[in-house]
Amino acid sequence: MSEPQDPLVVFTPSGKRGRVAPGTTVLAAARRLGVDLDSVCGGRGICSKCQVSPAYGEFAKHGVHVDDDALSAWNEVEARYDRIRGLAKGRRLGCQAQIQGDMVIDVPRESQVHKQVVRKEAAMRDITMNPATRLVFVEVQEPDMHEPTGDFERLARALKAQWDIEGVTADPTLLARLQPVLRKGNWQVTVALHKDHTGAPPRIVEVWPGLQEGPLYGLAIDLGSTTIAAHLTDLVTGAVAASAGAMNPQIRFGEDLMSRVSYAMMNPGGDKEMTAAVREAISGLIADLAQEAEIEADRIVEAVFVCNPVMHHLLLGFDPVELGQAPFALVTSNSMGLGAGDLELTGLTPRARIYVLPCIAGHVGADAAAVALSEQPGKSEDLVLVVDVGTNAEILLGDTSRVLACSSPTGPAFEGAQISSGQRAAPGAIERIEIDPVTKEPRFRIIGVEQWSDEDGFTEAAGPTAITGICGSGIIEAVAEMRMAGLLDPSGLIGSAEQCGTARCIPDGRTQSYVIWDGTEAGGPLIAVTQGDIRAIQLAKSALYAGARLLMDERSVDKVDRVVLAGAFGAHISPKHAMVLGMIPDVPLDKVTSAGNAAGTGARIALCNIDARAEIERTVREITKVETAIEPKFQEHFVAANAIPHKTDPFPELSRIVTLPDVSFNTYGSESGGRRRRRRG
Amino acid sequence: MSEPQDPLVVFTPSGKRGRVAPGTTVLAAARRLGVDLDSVCGGRGICSKCQVSPAYGEFAKHGVHVDDDALSAWNEVEARYDRIRGLAKGRRLGCQAQIQGDMVIDVPRESQVHKQVVRKEAAMRDITMNPATRLVFVEVQEPDMHEPTGDFERLARALKAQWDIEGVTADPTLLARLQPVLRKGNWQVTVALHKDHTGAPPRIVEVWPGLQEGPLYGLAIDLGSTTIAAHLTDLVTGAVAASAGAMNPQIRFGEDLMSRVSYAMMNPGGDKEMTAAVREAISGLIADLAQEAEIEADRIVEAVFVCNPVMHHLLLGFDPVELGQAPFALVTSNSMGLGAGDLELTGLTPRARIYVLPCIAGHVGADAAAVALSEQPGKSEDLVLVVDVGTNAEILLGDTSRVLACSSPTGPAFEGAQISSGQRAAPGAIERIEIDPVTKEPRFRIIGVEQWSDEDGFTEAAGPTAITGICGSGIIEAVAEMRMAGLLDPSGLIGSAEQCGTARCIPDGRTQSYVIWDGTEAGGPLIAVTQGDIRAIQLAKSALYAGARLLMDERSVDKVDRVVLAGAFGAHISPKHAMVLGMIPDVPLDKVTSAGNAAGTGARIALCNIDARAEIERTVREITKVETAIEPKFQEHFVAANAIPHKTDPFPELSRIVTLPDVSFNTYGSESGGRRRRRRG
Repeated sequence: MSEPQDPLVVFTPSGKRGRVAPGTTVLAAARRLGVDLDSVCGGRGICSKCQVSPAYGEFAKHGVHVDDDALSAWNEVEARYDRIRGLAKGRRLGCQAQIQGDMVIDVPRESQVHKQVVRKEAAMRDITMNPATRLVFVEVQEPDMHEPTGDFERLARALKAQWDIEGVTADPTLLARLQPVLRKGNWQVTVALHKDHTGAPPRIVEVWPGLQEGPLYGLAIDLGSTTIAAHLTDLVTGAVAASAGAMNPQIRFGEDLMSRVSYAMMNPGGDKEMTAAVREAISGLIADLAQEAEIEADRIVEAVFVCNPVMHHLLLGFDPVELGQAPFALVTSNSMGLGAGDLELTGLTPRARIYVLPCIAGHVGADAAAVALSEQPGKSEDLVLVVDVGTNAEILLGDTSRVLACSSPTGPAFEGAQISSGQRAAPGAIERIEIDPVTKEPRFRIIGVEQWSDEDGFTEAAGPTAITGICGSGIIEAVAEMRMAGLLDPSGLIGSAEQCGTARCIPDGRTQSYVIWDGTEAGGPLIAVTQGDIRAIQLAKSALYAGARLLMDERSVDKVDRVVLAGAFGAHISPKHAMVLGMIPDVPLDKVTSAGNAAGTGARIALCNIDARAEIERTVREITKVETAIEPKFQEHFVAANAIPHKTDPFPELSRIVTLPDVSFNTYGSESGGRRRRRRG
Repeated sequence: MSEPQDPLVVFTPSGKRGRVAPGTTVLAAARRLGVDLDSVCGGRGICSKCQVSPAYGEFAKHGVHVDDDALSAWNEVEARYDRIRGLAKGRRLGCQAQIQGDMVIDVPRESQVHKQVVRKEAAMRDITMNPATRLVFVEVQEPDMHEPTGDFERLARALKAQWDIEGVTADPTLLARLQPVLRKGNWQVTVALHKDHTGAPPRIVEVWPGLQEGPLYGLAIDLGSTTIAAHLTDLVTGAVAASAGAMNPQIRFGEDLMSRVSYAMMNPGGDKEMTAAVREAISGLIADLAQEAEIEADRIVEAVFVCNPVMHHLLLGFDPVELGQAPFALVTSNSMGLGAGDLELTGLTPRARIYVLPCIAGHVGADAAAVALSEQPGKSEDLVLVVDVGTNAEILLGDTSRVLACSSPTGPAFEGAQISSGQRAAPGAIERIEIDPVTKEPRFRIIGVEQWSDEDGFTEAAGPTAITGICGSGIIEAVAEMRMAGLLDPSGLIGSAEQCGTARCIPDGRTQSYVIWDGTEAGGPLIAVTQGDIRAIQLAKSALYAGARLLMDERSVDKVDRVVLAGAFGAHISPKHAMVLGMIPDVPLDKVTSAGNAAGTGARIALCNIDARAEIERTVREITKVETAIEPKFQEHFVAANAIPHKTDPFPELSRIVTLPDVSFNTYGSESGGRRRRRRG
């Protein structure tokens, strides 16, 4: 089509180049050369999405000299656009400016469809925008009695003619809206068009009169056992417009997953109750987000969900009973593409498309898949262990050669539940703690107060009854600090006041507790770490460690190169204390990073980029699933991991920070031994 | 794959033949040779759908000699089947019997999937069974913790392995049912699989434990402005298991289409009211049918709808307002594939698939498309005029070269509405009438009574007050008979008692009425044909005739070869009287046939055969649409057709039966002229 004497055009930053006939518009040239240049109005000079920055002069790098008249003069459309809406200096409308000579044309970031979004929180991986749903402006032919066709058929024909989009479909509820919108827009409308990675025909999910350049939103929703987090995300820029969280109302049916499965087993229709509850909560969350961002519901056209298998089933209306017993069969492990109506969700367009990430196995859910998508263990050159710490721990181990996954039933102790003074991470909760190895005195920080407890202004800031309990990260630090201060022996037994040399160790039945804070005089709580608390943390950390070990066995390794702590809670765990406890295998401290809410990030990536959906569906199939519940070695590792042993310096980096004392508290025996005797007595 | 020495097998009645390796089962051989042999269980010897009749001896026609041992001996599976369920003499199970020598094998009709169903009512065209939904039995692999996959993925894998059915999908509500059914069936289930002509992936719409050979039903629904007719149809045999009809509850919003459109225009949300009303009525009808046939709702897996454009829009939840004004733009003219939930229908499986036939134009609906499918004007060698008579008349004219269609606003007079003594076709309605041209005395028959009114036993059978009114076919005969008896002049004016020589002509204001039955003495009605009735029928027949003429103009013909009267009402119209009136163009009387409820038949064809769906979608695109409302010649034809003129014997066949008298009643002028004078006075 092009001749050797035709103008040469070079696009930056892509570097794509080629010759086009003189008079070709920049937008047409970009399309021909496969350059990523946006347009909503399809070249009518009204949306300005195709703005470009032409460059003039000598470009040795590209071997091009650009004359001043290489681009056609500013035309009437551009002048009008500039007059009404303003065009930045040096910018041209790509659909208007015509190429007359050799050109170098820069496509600014905001004019690219597939722009990169830099993740600020944890810059592990940037998101490339390639969302399933986008806005498309079309001019539709008016109806003609002599050639009767439906309004929808003429809209479909316009999409084919003006955008080369073939075979569009629409739900009856969209068709029901179509006629008034077409007439209100005087036969010009903007449609939200959904086309995902599955090869399904493109689908019109919303329609508005006239040209609509935005906004267009999707939701990334991390549906956890305890909390639901939703991010309203701009589908053009990838920016998070608003975030909101809510408690999962299913908590009233059971704190942890298995108690909810039990509820479904014991109560006919119990699963339906839980499904209705969570769907209602999600709809409420969506309404909050729309209100916060001050947008109409019809602008929210997509949602992506990540969740563990039980949440997955209860969201989708599946009875989770099979997940409560071996062989833990999922109803479906594939990703799901649904309509908002299928999930009875409100607050977004009723035709919004829902994407649920695939599950990896009966115990390893779409949340783990989302972590894999966010943290990409399969693209890691070194061997990385990714641990998503929550009520259940999802564990991934891998590198470019192979990725393994399992889930480990840590229970809710890490979240502060089943701990005598435990509470959720909320103002008043002890989140950080240090114990002086000499004086055995603690100092701590509570959520909501800047100062440590021994710093000036703490009492004033906190008030006498402000200290309410210990949250998950606090209890982990407390146990680790107690061990480092010699208050615990390697078996996890708390020493007595005499053995430890501190009155903070007090008898509590046949065992001891360590008092962190006594607020009883002011009417507040007595916050202590009991022997039972230590045991709960030991069980949880053993389960987590055993899961990681099992994967390491499968890979035949006894160490990993680095550890990523994921999960909203993982972001708050101190790597040092986690390693002291033996929650995670020993690695140099600087090789332990936090990925924040990696599952939520994975959801956002899948929302913004359909290629990522295809990628995670492929990845999930390739992951080696390890089932902890049936693996005899899991029990071995679990038992072996129970202690918090003396460290013999395997890692100098770690030993520089901490050496655990080799104490031993000789009592009448271990706690469990004691219990056994009691029962016999 | 086969060798020259392999046994030769000939299947009848298809005549398909080929060589297969010795030991091949008859079912496998049939599949290899493309022979239509049914199987639900997939060759496990439990469903018996693959029964065949082997033939032995010399078959000169096929060039085959069949030895006694050409088929393997009766095996244990066949013996067990015969013991438990009985196998007819001479029959073998195709999946068990193995071919050992040259064979001739007959596939009986009931073992064919694509069997022909002979239409008894009106044998215009038989239905070949090729339904979208069929039953498939599969054995699913049990879940394995070591290779975690979802139950649905294993079901999909089994369908691929055992039936070569790839890429099945399922709605979340089906997935929600899957796990208990799989376990109840001990990992053997039967699924209802929907695969239509659109190329969409196959979809599981229902699942039952174990082997289910049937029944499986679909609904053919003719949604009319006045009545809804539904036929519960066996998707294997094509037989109608039950039929039911109900009044369209939308009648309370307006008798005819345009008054319903007006209701939607004048009342915000009025369209939604009408949509809800009709959907509820359809659901009630489905429940009635299931009860009558004594089947569970989950056995009804499909429904096909035919209806006019306004009913189409109101069924689908589209505001019909655009259909009330030029250019009569449909929301969509394409066929629709939906779920039962999209139409809020109950009484069938919630995942039942709905197919709505395409509309031809804004005034020519899916009912006309169904008539085209049933009557196939495009396959007619001679030029056929198909008239579907109802509140609106759908008119098709065509032959193999081209088909034209239009719709004509006849109004409800033909259905007995807007007629002074008019009523619906129900017991007590006069449906046939003859008037003696000499005595001017009428004789008639009423619905529900065998005898004519002048025959012995009529009074006993009917009773003195049994005669309640005149139905549509009755009024047409009455008007035509009045013209033939010289009671009407060509302009349609009723003569006076003196002019006509009968006391049955009585004054009625400034015009005359003709009394058919005076039941007033016994407290019954006075049934007469008024001048207004004549005018209403003249308007209706002129509209119908003008529509037909318009299509004939388009084809540049002034006669047609044959006429088909369709519509439930069309079945009752006397062709002779229709032609006397000038409702339809003159053709030899034996060239006028009734197609019964052709729209309903079209719905049934589309339900039973997906190829027919593809065919009608193609046909509809090829039909030339003629819009009566904007065609000036329609008005010309309409005015010209108003009279019931003296016939000058253009068709000897017709003139043998009737010659219209050349009478003229001179009064003060035409009725409308009289009115005009009154207004001026």
